[in-house]
Amino acid sequence: RSEKMAKSTQFIDNEVFRAYATYAAIVLLKMMLMSLITAYFRITRKAFVNPEDTASFGKGENAKKYLRTDPDVERVRRGHLNDLENIVPFVGIGLLYALSGPELSTALLHFRIFVGARILHTFAYLIPLPQPGRGLSWAVGYAVTLSMAYKVLKTVLLL
Amino acid sequence: RSEKMAKSTQFIDNEVFRAYATYAAIVLLKMMLMSLITAYFRITRKAFVNPEDTASFGKGENAKKYLRTDPDVERVRRGHLNDLENIVPFVGIGLLYALSGPELSTALLHFRIFVGARILHTFAYLIPLPQPGRGLSWAVGYAVTLSMAYKVLKTVLLL
Amino acid sequence: RSEKMAKSTQFIDNEVFRAYATYAAIVLLKMMLMSLITAYFRITRKAFVNPEDTASFGKGENAKKYLRTDPDVERVRRGHLNDLENIVPFVGIGLLYALSGPELSTALLHFRIFVGARILHTFAYLIPLPQPGRGLSWAVGYAVTLSMAYKVLKTVLLL
Repeated sequence: RSEKMAKSTQFIDNEVFRAYATYAAIVLLKMMLMSLITAYFRITRKAFVNPEDTASFGKGENAKKYLRTDPDVERVRRGHLNDLENIVPFVGIGLLYALSGPELSTALLHFRIFVGARILHTFAYLIPLPQPGRGLSWAVGYAVTLSMAYKVLKTVLLL
Repeated sequence: RSEKMAKSTQFIDNEVFRAYATYAAIVLLKMMLMSLITAYFRITRKAFVNPEDTASFGKGENAKKYLRTDPDVERVRRGHLNDLENIVPFVGIGLLYALSGPELSTALLHFRIFVGARILHTFAYLIPLPQPGRGLSWAVGYAVTLSMAYKVLKTVLLL
Repeated sequence: RSEKMAKSTQFIDNEVFRAYATYAAIVLLKMMLMSLITAYFRITRKAFVNPEDTASFGKGENAKKYLRTDPDVERVRRGHLNDLENIVPFVGIGLLYALSGPELSTALLHFRIFVGARILHTFAYLIPLPQPGRGLSWAVGYAVTLSMAYKVLKTVLLL
């Protein structure tokens, strides 16, 4: 048992992998935060999509009027979907990148820029900031993931 | 060759990792099931979104009337998107958690509660159950992922 | 330090894992490409969703008319969401599969068919090809992921 435990923690002893685990966890938590922000706006704007969610507002027409879209809710939802579209590739490619033997400093640079860019992207989307604020923060995160994918393919390519 | 094979299976010998692999595969299969349920409702409700999908119903107006949204189809699609928003963080953070050396019993507790909560969430969404059924099942899965993220960051933090 | 580096590259020395890393990176890059195609259609069709994205077209009504949905944009977005729904399970289950000790030739067969099917699916969605072109390419990718999940559960099952 203790030997197995040792084996499982060996992996996490690798510094690049620890950095990956730290930033991947942080950016996934940031993505999860979007669910809470959506719920906050749905409740404060009284804008729901499922009939069963408005049952506490009464029956019939009184409840039905809360089944509507709200611009703030839709904005958070777009930000959440954009997170899925960009953070999923980062988490997947980043894992392979962390296992491809990069220098710790190079890896940290990639992870820090990506996570910083995605946090900026969320603020740019939700405030919202004038363009090209959101566009640039999106592009920086995208470029970091491309750079990691290039390193992965250069290192491991087996087609 | 056999030495390489040995190396690759070593990893899977770790019990916590085996438990993670089991529950991650199950919950990803559950998420994939949503595609089949969507297809089932699209076909039985005759509610499609792509013109090429209605070509078998004939040409012109006859086919066009099946290009419509249906409440049951939209409900399954919302459940599917909610799965993506919650199961992706579980799979990502759960992998890091499994590598962070938790006790097997603690890890199993996390994995079982999460997967159970997401299965309940699907039933609550599709039946649908009155609230707070769906909300609670969502919150339980969310809390499990937060608990794993806390363990990961406590163990590996390298910023 | 050099010992740690060795440990991290050991893993990537496994041929099945190298094959997984190659195909996972390629199919995630393919998914990321959908963002660029969406942006291309939004700009050429002048169809935006965020008011701040149309500010460069002027103020008031002149800019507002570009806040609209466009069939081509929506089509790419549906393809992108379909990628998320199918590529996420492949990347997750594929990682576990690669660690479950399959034969290299069997693993390559799975990875190549999945990635080929998803590239065909994208062409079938965007051109669009008549059905069952898109349906079949979707089903092939789906079946490959099910086959990998079966191997994973057969090898590691620990409930």
